[in-house]
Amino acid sequence: MESSAPRTLEDCRALDGRDPLAALRGKFALPETGRLHFDANSIGAMPADAPGRVARLLAGSWRDKGRRSWSTEDWLEKPRELGAAISHMVGAAPGDVVVCDSTTVNLFKLLCHAWKLRAGGNVILTESHNFPTDIHVAQGFVRLLADLGVEAEIRMAESRDRLADMLDRDVAVLYLTQTDYRSSERWDMAEINRLARAADALTVWDLSHSAGALDIDLAGDGTDFAVGCGYKYLCGGPGGPAFLFVNPAHQGAAWPAIAGWMGHAQWDRFLADYEPAAGVSRHLAGTPAVVANEIFGAAADIWRTASRREVAAKHESLTGTLIALLDRECGALGARVTSPREYGRRGGHVSFAHPGAGPVAEALADHGLVGSFRHPDSIRFGLSPLYHSHEDVWNAVAIVKDVLQREAWRDPRYATVAI
Amino acid sequence: MESSAPRTLEDCRALDGRDPLAALRGKFALPETGRLHFDANSIGAMPADAPGRVARLLAGSWRDKGRRSWSTEDWLEKPRELGAAISHMVGAAPGDVVVCDSTTVNLFKLLCHAWKLRAGGNVILTESHNFPTDIHVAQGFVRLLADLGVEAEIRMAESRDRLADMLDRDVAVLYLTQTDYRSSERWDMAEINRLARAADALTVWDLSHSAGALDIDLAGDGTDFAVGCGYKYLCGGPGGPAFLFVNPAHQGAAWPAIAGWMGHAQWDRFLADYEPAAGVSRHLAGTPAVVANEIFGAAADIWRTASRREVAAKHESLTGTLIALLDRECGALGARVTSPREYGRRGGHVSFAHPGAGPVAEALADHGLVGSFRHPDSIRFGLSPLYHSHEDVWNAVAIVKDVLQREAWRDPRYATVAI
Repeated sequence: MESSAPRTLEDCRALDGRDPLAALRGKFALPETGRLHFDANSIGAMPADAPGRVARLLAGSWRDKGRRSWSTEDWLEKPRELGAAISHMVGAAPGDVVVCDSTTVNLFKLLCHAWKLRAGGNVILTESHNFPTDIHVAQGFVRLLADLGVEAEIRMAESRDRLADMLDRDVAVLYLTQTDYRSSERWDMAEINRLARAADALTVWDLSHSAGALDIDLAGDGTDFAVGCGYKYLCGGPGGPAFLFVNPAHQGAAWPAIAGWMGHAQWDRFLADYEPAAGVSRHLAGTPAVVANEIFGAAADIWRTASRREVAAKHESLTGTLIALLDRECGALGARVTSPREYGRRGGHVSFAHPGAGPVAEALADHGLVGSFRHPDSIRFGLSPLYHSHEDVWNAVAIVKDVLQREAWRDPRYATVAI
Repeated sequence: MESSAPRTLEDCRALDGRDPLAALRGKFALPETGRLHFDANSIGAMPADAPGRVARLLAGSWRDKGRRSWSTEDWLEKPRELGAAISHMVGAAPGDVVVCDSTTVNLFKLLCHAWKLRAGGNVILTESHNFPTDIHVAQGFVRLLADLGVEAEIRMAESRDRLADMLDRDVAVLYLTQTDYRSSERWDMAEINRLARAADALTVWDLSHSAGALDIDLAGDGTDFAVGCGYKYLCGGPGGPAFLFVNPAHQGAAWPAIAGWMGHAQWDRFLADYEPAAGVSRHLAGTPAVVANEIFGAAADIWRTASRREVAAKHESLTGTLIALLDRECGALGARVTSPREYGRRGGHVSFAHPGAGPVAEALADHGLVGSFRHPDSIRFGLSPLYHSHEDVWNAVAIVKDVLQREAWRDPRYATVAI
C-alpha cells in the first residue's frame, strides 16, 4: 500500500478497494451502535463466530457431554493449537508458541526461565515507561529472590536513548515491551537483541501492543523469550489468555518455575514425578481456560488466513493515514500527534496529545468514536488491519475535528473520564 | 436428613420431597440427552443462566461497548465479588477469598507465600497420593529454589497414617489435598492444622475435590492457605478460574511472588512502583478472565443462596444412599465401594472398584450414567447437593446393576476407555 497519505474520502475508498485483507472485516461482528471502535490496543473486535461457538460449547459439550468432553473435545490440546495458529504473526515456528494464562503470569514464568539460564550478572534491565504489570512482575520476582537470600536488582532506563549504555555485563535479563503503551514508540527488536547478545544478556519481550499489528520476526530477530496479550489486536476476547514464546534453544534448558500437570511430558498418565514436556509446552501449567480458548479459536481461524506482511502493510497505511489526517484537520485545533511519524519506530496505536484529552475522549465516544485516554493528556487510537478501513479513519478524523472545533468536549457531562 | 439409607424408590422420593435445596436443581440446565452426570468432581453442571449471560456479555459489552467495558462493567471487580460469593461455602470471610487463575498457578503463589513466612525447616511435606499437579508445583518450586542455590526438600507420606509422624520441625509447609482424587478419603482439616501448628508448619490445602460439597471451615479450623478448583462442585464452567484463600494473619505479611497490576493497591493509577493491595487481593495478578468470570458468576449467584450446612447434609445423604444401594444391589456383582463409609472421613465423591472398571465406565455412560474411570480399577461418582436428587441415585444404581448383571460392559465397543 502507498505510504503517502490519501487526501480525500475517495482516496481512502480507493485504498480500501485494493485492500487484500478487506474480506476479513466480514468475519467480525462490529458494534451495533455504529460507533467506530479504535480500541484494538485495548480490546480487539469480536469475531462473528465467537458467540455461536461458545453457545455450542456450553450446551453441546459442557451441558450434554459433561466430563467426557475432557477426552472427546480438543480442550486440552487448544493451548498448542492456538499458539500454532498465531505463531506466523510473530515470526515463530508453530511449535514454539502456546496460548495460556495471563500476560502477567507468563511474564513471571519467562523471567524465571531466563534467570535460570542467565550467563552472569544479577540485573534485570527495563525502562521506567514499561507497562506497570511488567514492572511489577520484575519487582515481585526480585523481592522473591531477596526473600530467598538471592541478590538481584532492577535497573530502569528513564528514556529509551539511555538503554544501550545501561546494557552492560551486569545485565542478566533485558526486559522490555516492544511498543510503549502510551506513546506507541517501538523498539527495533533485531537491534536490541543484537545488543543484548553482545552483552550476554537474555531478552524477554512483551508484545502486547504489537502482536497482530506489526511485522514481528521472533525467530529471525533472535529473540530469547516473549509474551503478549491475547485480547488486544489478536481479538481473543476480553480477559482471554495470553501467549508465550520460548526460543527453541532455551526450551529444554530449564524446568518451568510453575510446573503443572498440563506441562508434564505424559500428563494423561497422572504420574507423581514431574517430567517436563518437550519444548514450550512445559510452560502450560493448569487446566486450560476452555471457554476463553474457544473464543480465541474464533480469532485464530481468522489469523490462520492472514499474511503477516499484508497485516503490517495495512497497519502502516491505516496509521499513516490517521496521522496525516489528524495533522491536517486537527493540528490547528490543539491535537498534537505524539507517536513517532516514522513507521519503523511506531508501534500498534497512534497517540495524540490535547490539553483536554480526558473530556475529549469522553466526547468522542459520545459522538461515535471510541479511543482511550491516558493520563495526563493523551488519547490513543488502536487500529486493526483485520477490520478497520481507510474510510473508517476518514470518518474518525471528521468526528475528532467536529468535537474539537465546536468544543463539544467542554460540556460538563464529559468531565467524568473513564480509564 | 436421615443418615440411614432409603430402602426403596419411594424412600428416595420422600427424602427429595423434604430437601431444602430441591429448588436449586431448577437453576441448572441438565443434559438434554437425559443422561445422569455423576461427574461434579470433574465438571459441575451448567447453571441455566450461563449461556444467556455470556451471550449478553459478548454482544452487549464486548461487541457494542468495546474497551469502555473495562470501566463501565464490573469486569475488574469480579475476582473479589466471586470470591466473596463462595466464601461462606469454605468458611471464610468474604474478603479473604478471590477467584482467579488456575488451581496450579494459585498453588504456586501460595507455596511461595508460605515459604516466605515459614518459621524454619526446609521441607514441604505432602503425600504421594496427592493430585499430580499439586506434586508437580511443589517439585517445580523446589527445583526453582535449587536453581537459586536455596535448599529445600519434598517429603511424601506413602500413606495417610504415616503423615503425623513425618510432621516434625523440619517441615516448613504441610501441603495437602483434603479429598483424595481417587479414593475420596478426607483429611480432618482441623486436626491436621492443629498438628501443623504444633510443629510450627504452615498449611496449604487444595480443596478441589471438597469445595461445594463438604462442610469446610477454613477460618474456624485455622487454615493458613487454601486453593480450590472452580469448575468441579462449584460449577464455574470448564477450565474456569480457581479460588484462593489466605488467612488474614498472613495476607499482609509478604509480597505476592507474582506481582501484577491487578494486585496493586492502586492498580488504576498505572504506577510503576509496585505496592501490594491490602489483603488477599494482592494475589490477583493479570487481567481477569472476563468471560469465564461471567460464567462463574452464574454459579456464584446460586451459591449465594445456599447454606453450607444444608449443602453438606444433603451431600452426606446422597453419598450415603449411593454407598448403601451400591452395596446392596451391586456388591454381589463385583462392585466394591472403596471410599470411606464414615462420612467424616469421606470427601466429595464415591469410588468403587470393579475388575473391569474401564469398560464398565464406558458402558455406564452408554447406558445413561456418566462417571469417571481412574486407573487401574476405580470408578468415581461425584454428586452435587445443588442438582442431584436421591431419585437420581436410585436410578443410577439401577443402571450400574443392569450393566454389571448383564455383563454389558464386556461388549468390545467399550474397550477403548476415556480418561
